[in-house]
Amino acid sequence: MAAVHEERRERLRRLMREGRLDALLVAKPANRYYLSGFELHDTQCDESSGLLVVAADGRDWLATDARFSEAAEGLWDGGRILVYGQDRHKGIAELLRNCGGRIGFEEDVLTCEFARHLANSAHGVALEGRKGLVESLRKIKDPLELEAIARSYALNHRLMAEVGSWLVPGRSEGEIVWAIERFFRENGASELAFPSIVAVDANAAMPHALPGSTPVSPSGMVLVDAGCRLDDYCSDQTRTFWVGETGGAGHDRFRRLLDLVQKAQRAAIDGMRPGMKGRDVHGLAMKVFEEAGEGEAFTHSLGHGVGLQTHEQPSLSVNSDQVLEPGMVVTVEPGLYHPGWGGLRWEHAVVVEADGARVL
Amino acid sequence: MAAVHEERRERLRRLMREGRLDALLVAKPANRYYLSGFELHDTQCDESSGLLVVAADGRDWLATDARFSEAAEGLWDGGRILVYGQDRHKGIAELLRNCGGRIGFEEDVLTCEFARHLANSAHGVALEGRKGLVESLRKIKDPLELEAIARSYALNHRLMAEVGSWLVPGRSEGEIVWAIERFFRENGASELAFPSIVAVDANAAMPHALPGSTPVSPSGMVLVDAGCRLDDYCSDQTRTFWVGETGGAGHDRFRRLLDLVQKAQRAAIDGMRPGMKGRDVHGLAMKVFEEAGEGEAFTHSLGHGVGLQTHEQPSLSVNSDQVLEPGMVVTVEPGLYHPGWGGLRWEHAVVVEADGARVL
Repeated sequence: MAAVHEERRERLRRLMREGRLDALLVAKPANRYYLSGFELHDTQCDESSGLLVVAADGRDWLATDARFSEAAEGLWDGGRILVYGQDRHKGIAELLRNCGGRIGFEEDVLTCEFARHLANSAHGVALEGRKGLVESLRKIKDPLELEAIARSYALNHRLMAEVGSWLVPGRSEGEIVWAIERFFRENGASELAFPSIVAVDANAAMPHALPGSTPVSPSGMVLVDAGCRLDDYCSDQTRTFWVGETGGAGHDRFRRLLDLVQKAQRAAIDGMRPGMKGRDVHGLAMKVFEEAGEGEAFTHSLGHGVGLQTHEQPSLSVNSDQVLEPGMVVTVEPGLYHPGWGGLRWEHAVVVEADGARVL
Repeated sequence: MAAVHEERRERLRRLMREGRLDALLVAKPANRYYLSGFELHDTQCDESSGLLVVAADGRDWLATDARFSEAAEGLWDGGRILVYGQDRHKGIAELLRNCGGRIGFEEDVLTCEFARHLANSAHGVALEGRKGLVESLRKIKDPLELEAIARSYALNHRLMAEVGSWLVPGRSEGEIVWAIERFFRENGASELAFPSIVAVDANAAMPHALPGSTPVSPSGMVLVDAGCRLDDYCSDQTRTFWVGETGGAGHDRFRRLLDLVQKAQRAAIDGMRPGMKGRDVHGLAMKVFEEAGEGEAFTHSLGHGVGLQTHEQPSLSVNSDQVLEPGMVVTVEPGLYHPGWGGLRWEHAVVVEADGARVL
């Protein structure tokens, strides 16, 4: 068991003591991996590769099925691996009963069905839905994580420096998406951090457009939102390019909106400080848009944490009470969308530091 | 709204009437897509792209957030789209209250947290956890689905016909995995159906090995398990190859086990019929292994349904009571694993037909 995972579980145990929990059942893949190094991904979204029982007394268990037992033995004390069959809730319930009377589970991950089975099997145990315990550790990155994130972003910057030259009129969104994936994978990324977005003209008005057969036009905009996973950590960057003839009315509108988006982004990055709430950082960008009469066209949140997952804590949304702390990594990605015409988004990621934010 | 989706929701309504439900809240991405054509994937596993409310009275709703609203308008009656913000449970609860008193939800998908919020907001409504309603439709493929699956498998067969020549001693598992992905993507697939497995020698003893830097050895085995998504539908195939010198003790053991695995597969495919339970099909293969003293080395289930998801209903596992019906598509993938030495798996997919099974 790697020291870094043990140390993280020790920090989790301190939070569990404050929350008076005898154990926490960890099911979220990124949380499981953060605490154990076991399987960053589930087989598919509705099919777990395994769970952790983190116990207040330090006797932690890894529970998985036979497909992963040899992988588990490679990184976990063999005496504390439960290999379950179809009735996994029974075996896990027994582990939990041995931990004590108050057991937390991740209520934002566990399904109603699994929780019901577990409750039926775990007699004498109080199961309490909790949320965000491991995430509250994960949102502050340690130096090794920051280095991995910086490497992931360095590759993402190389992509963004090249991708402009691939936006040739006639080439389809789908072809460019595949060129992006090839670039990432052939330069060290293990996978995409999320499905890339390449959106031409009116398609760019949909913040989560599905790239298709639309070709780059002789004169128009292309929004590119792409990221990779490198050394386990995600990156996420957006740029919006103008292709072809400049100087016409379309290009003028593009330039005006791009200036505004970049101004909003700068206002947020320059203004953010530890201690601020996510909603207030969002507000810094929104203020710029509202003053220009474009507030309605900014339809999503300003940003989100990034790490083992592309979207994680903290949120920079209009409703977010989460407070910035040094060591957080967040995206700052204002955008303006004019349905039927197009849209622009521009994204940086920053590390929150003692006196502000440093762009990655 | 495409006729095929309306027709599927009508069939679901018949099941809902039998189950005395006034509405069903659909959250599982593949179910949502099957019934509406809206977003086959969620943004990430713990981040929904939207939900459907399928109502007994036929007034169905699509609920999503602003990022997807334009996409939603492209394929759904604009008067029945709910664009929610952070408090999505409130808006959805109101839709459900308008449907009647008995509302089903997918208990194997909805998280405890969301169900709790929903219950708090949906006063006067009985929320009932249900499971498998949409899946019971999905597991029987219609002719257009069978054609799409056949196209996906046709590309997978082309891959398997080529991949043997890529298994060159010294080449790493990771390099071969990437060559497989390039082949699929450059020949029409939209993505992989699941992360490919390429496992050399002892790594092949782990049924879900993570491909790494291990090179193909001058003389040894390589297990390749790969599939693609083409025209929305998944394929899944496994072969185990021998590379290099034949005739030695290692190769003899490989040949003996491969013959056994293929014999077990044949027994299952030749013996399966509509009306049989999943566990009995599994038993046909297990019987062959047990008679050869290898029962312990077959550590997973014989197969699973495949369609919009790589793993779906029905299961051919030792515990499965699911009954085969014409129109089902299942994998048949027996394997034998000898830890420390290696493992073999061989996989076909079949369509269940009136008088048996047809290999795809």
